[in-house]
Amino acid sequence: MLSINAERFLADMEELAQIGATASGGVSRPALGAQDLQARAWLQSKFESLGLDYEQDGAANQFGTLRADVADAKTLLIGSHLDSVPDGGRYDGALGVLCALEVVRRLQESEHKLPFHLACVNFTDEEGTLMGLMGSRAVSGQMSADDLQNPRGGRSRLEAAMQRAGISDASILGARRSPDNLLGYIEVHIEQGTRLEQAELQVGVVTALVGIRMKRLTFTGQAAHAGTTPVNARRDAFLGVADFALRAHDLVLQKHMPGVVNVGEVAVEPGAFNIVPGQVTAALEFRHGSQEELDALEHDLLSLAQTVADERRLELEIDGLGEVRPAAMDVTLTRHIEAASEVLGLGHTRLMSFAGHDPQNMANIVPSALLFVPSVDGISHNPREYTPPQDCINGANVLLHTVLRLAENSE
Amino acid sequence: MLSINAERFLADMEELAQIGATASGGVSRPALGAQDLQARAWLQSKFESLGLDYEQDGAANQFGTLRADVADAKTLLIGSHLDSVPDGGRYDGALGVLCALEVVRRLQESEHKLPFHLACVNFTDEEGTLMGLMGSRAVSGQMSADDLQNPRGGRSRLEAAMQRAGISDASILGARRSPDNLLGYIEVHIEQGTRLEQAELQVGVVTALVGIRMKRLTFTGQAAHAGTTPVNARRDAFLGVADFALRAHDLVLQKHMPGVVNVGEVAVEPGAFNIVPGQVTAALEFRHGSQEELDALEHDLLSLAQTVADERRLELEIDGLGEVRPAAMDVTLTRHIEAASEVLGLGHTRLMSFAGHDPQNMANIVPSALLFVPSVDGISHNPREYTPPQDCINGANVLLHTVLRLAENSE
Repeated sequence: MLSINAERFLADMEELAQIGATASGGVSRPALGAQDLQARAWLQSKFESLGLDYEQDGAANQFGTLRADVADAKTLLIGSHLDSVPDGGRYDGALGVLCALEVVRRLQESEHKLPFHLACVNFTDEEGTLMGLMGSRAVSGQMSADDLQNPRGGRSRLEAAMQRAGISDASILGARRSPDNLLGYIEVHIEQGTRLEQAELQVGVVTALVGIRMKRLTFTGQAAHAGTTPVNARRDAFLGVADFALRAHDLVLQKHMPGVVNVGEVAVEPGAFNIVPGQVTAALEFRHGSQEELDALEHDLLSLAQTVADERRLELEIDGLGEVRPAAMDVTLTRHIEAASEVLGLGHTRLMSFAGHDPQNMANIVPSALLFVPSVDGISHNPREYTPPQDCINGANVLLHTVLRLAENSE
Repeated sequence: MLSINAERFLADMEELAQIGATASGGVSRPALGAQDLQARAWLQSKFESLGLDYEQDGAANQFGTLRADVADAKTLLIGSHLDSVPDGGRYDGALGVLCALEVVRRLQESEHKLPFHLACVNFTDEEGTLMGLMGSRAVSGQMSADDLQNPRGGRSRLEAAMQRAGISDASILGARRSPDNLLGYIEVHIEQGTRLEQAELQVGVVTALVGIRMKRLTFTGQAAHAGTTPVNARRDAFLGVADFALRAHDLVLQKHMPGVVNVGEVAVEPGAFNIVPGQVTAALEFRHGSQEELDALEHDLLSLAQTVADERRLELEIDGLGEVRPAAMDVTLTRHIEAASEVLGLGHTRLMSFAGHDPQNMANIVPSALLFVPSVDGISHNPREYTPPQDCINGANVLLHTVLRLAENSE
């Protein structure tokens, strides 16, 4: 049975981890910064030394393609991203690119004849130093000219990055690809959670990437002297947010699992020891696996916020701050991943991804799939992020056999 | 029965309210700023036109003294402060100085022979633009050279103010007065609360100014990905603060009334939509009438914080950030105020002051008293602060008759 060259694969992993290496053992490679550019050059040289077709598109996505000797062959994309959060870990993103690189290389040297072109892809700025999932948004046509004017990291940072990468607004928008010549997209990623670890399973087969909705809740009461205003005569906006946050978590636990909710930031006005809070703004985020589940969760959370406001004689204002739509993964691809795991004797389970990944964009234009390998203690976006070598190897082998199954089933 | 000249008193009030007047109908006279200096010059000219002994001490406190024709007479101080918070109201402080001015003037023109010197005082910086209760702290010897190096408003602001007022560190510390030649201190002030208004009473006789304790509570959990970390697997520091704040208010209502508690400022780290709060710092303040009551309240609040931390698997750190000790008012003086209110047919009640005032310092060296008149809706430190004219007049008349009763009882 074909399997990857584990030694070579782990050596690549070690080599790549030196680029942007931090003292604490992680890597810091913000998108299109100096370290990311160095990692990209490393990947390009790997592609070129293998004799793969190398291409960088208008959004600076990199492709190394093993071309099939078939007329009108479509392309199967496999990969992930090389950029990291500032002071991040070695595995998030990099693992998926290295699995894809090794799978392409193994199939090339095994002289396996594929009925499709197989391209290893490194998507630009998955982590959002610039705008988040930028490369896959561009490729899948999920980006507008307006988006480029107001990116998450600020326009001036994006402009500097575009200049360093030799791309432009126009080239990014032009990176959109027609689904007609694409077969699908498959990504290996670390779980960034503990479900696999706790279940002692090797492979997580993602059924959907959850949708995310963000709201700003503003509770307004009456700022007051914290000495002269009796406790039972106050309209304390902080107590409103406190009450809401506690009851929102209970609500999710009782009725919306495995959905999640977070009150991640709170601003208290005027904000002094001796003044009862008059206005408090809370950043609310919640996630669930489908639009229906998100709608139900949103309804319950916002009703709760209004109930709390009414009970405490507070005014409530709710601002929507955008959303990420849930993305279902392709059923056929997920079944191939499960079958490949079986062949390799690896324990697997279906689960949802509660973090965003490039397949959520790619699923808009082509059948897409995402598979997880375990993360120790679920630590992520942190230098202590760790996945044992065997789990990394498993991920690459599952990807290899998934590609092989697709090849068999396409012939 | 002697009473103040209400027309003259209200005309003074109107005239003084023009100094530092704001568009919204209040006044802005931060201590020793241009407007406060103008108000002080106005008061000095009032004193001098009456032929009172005028003195400004080393802490810039102003005294206008009606001298008794008695050997070895002591001095009774009556007054308050002319400074305001930025963009404050007309009544906080100013009312007490104007009541005292009118009482001195009325007794002077009535040729009443007092057995003590009667001094109208304007204490410097009660509101804390510079350091808070500065004038009375200096007079009562509650200030150190260190305090002057680290004032609440910053050293450079204090230095500029000292230069404008022609005072120095040395002169401020030298303003300390011996209690030997002082008889007492009595102040009229607006309530800054609604207890009198709700009870439809005209006079509040303060039994004690509450003590205040300030703590910084830091709850530490684990910052985590708000998507991939299930709700029941988190150590969310914000939920700790939320739970504490709600239960702390219930605790005070059930067990420590009329004590008060406030969580007035909260800082969430890292503070993002998609990160479970890892560390949250809360500014906690609580007030009560005696050291014993404060000790009991502190014990219960800090035990509660630890209980919440334990229940939620959080670490808790508690930092003390100083305190204001409670100050009991003089029993004999408060009885004279009650008797004076009776004579005038005014409804009165005993209560505690939950805000700080100069009598809390003066009580350290001489018998001191504080009486409140109503504030509409309890609004304070705000241009909308309002006390109807008749309530202002009542305050001045109660002060007048309290002074007369003291004179009778000293003879």
